[in-house]
Amino acid sequence: MTALLALKDTLLDSVKEVFESMVFMSLSEVEGQAPDAGDLALLGTITFTGSLEGCLTICCGQRCAQTIAANMLCMESLDELADEDTVDAIGEIANMVMGSVKTRLQDEITDITISIPSVVQGRHLSNRLSEGMVQAVVNATLADEHHASFSLLHRESGTGSGGNG
Amino acid sequence: MTALLALKDTLLDSVKEVFESMVFMSLSEVEGQAPDAGDLALLGTITFTGSLEGCLTICCGQRCAQTIAANMLCMESLDELADEDTVDAIGEIANMVMGSVKTRLQDEITDITISIPSVVQGRHLSNRLSEGMVQAVVNATLADEHHASFSLLHRESGTGSGGNG
Repeated sequence: MTALLALKDTLLDSVKEVFESMVFMSLSEVEGQAPDAGDLALLGTITFTGSLEGCLTICCGQRCAQTIAANMLCMESLDELADEDTVDAIGEIANMVMGSVKTRLQDEITDITISIPSVVQGRHLSNRLSEGMVQAVVNATLADEHHASFSLLHRESGTGSGGNG
Repeated sequence: MTALLALKDTLLDSVKEVFESMVFMSLSEVEGQAPDAGDLALLGTITFTGSLEGCLTICCGQRCAQTIAANMLCMESLDELADEDTVDAIGEIANMVMGSVKTRLQDEITDITISIPSVVQGRHLSNRLSEGMVQAVVNATLADEHHASFSLLHRESGTGSGGNG
């Protein structure tokens, strides 16, 4: 099975590719997560099924999410942004990063089916792991200013006890 | 297209069916949402695709989630519960309610594909709608004590501007 270490590299490469080619923001990996001050944040999630199943998430503060959305839409100012634009941008980042991960894994895992993203707003957000799941995590700064974290939660399909058979 | 009002009834019937037959807890619909005191809560989400796409969510406080998990697992006391049991229970509720919704809609919509659930923990949690999405909401009390809310966010596929083509 694909080792967790390899998936962490796959996740990092995919995140970098999306931010360079689609968001036009510099991204550097950082050690350790930014302290969660309880500020309002957005969490975008996209699930996938196949012989490897799980979900990919991006979590960042409201201001970071707005900056990402403005960059993707080539807007000069955050004032022009509708609330929905920001939500859709975070969902679309999850979708694009997952697409890149799928492409990078396709020699090893050929049967991954990706669903559609969903976005949640809240404070002190964290992904919770189901039975048998492990996660690869990438913490990053964007444009030397914002913090965002990315997770790839996964397990071999059939590992959990869930009744999704 | 399926009217929002009809989907709200479909959601309520599905929630009732799952709680009666699988969780063994009484459930009553209530008007208006419980005030969000900022307590720690769990949000379970399951997405679906097809000519109708979106996600179904359940959101409830930590104690409510533990009670649901203990009931599903026929445990006498919450002390025996592992953290993962609670997470899996909330994901499984989303999965089962969505399965029931799909069955109820199958004469009208034949091509719904359901993904796997994901679970997020946090405070002040709320679903955020993507472009073109509307939601049907059911607020309920469980066992006359706990509050839980259920949402069915949906749109006709292709309605949004997202690049998930």
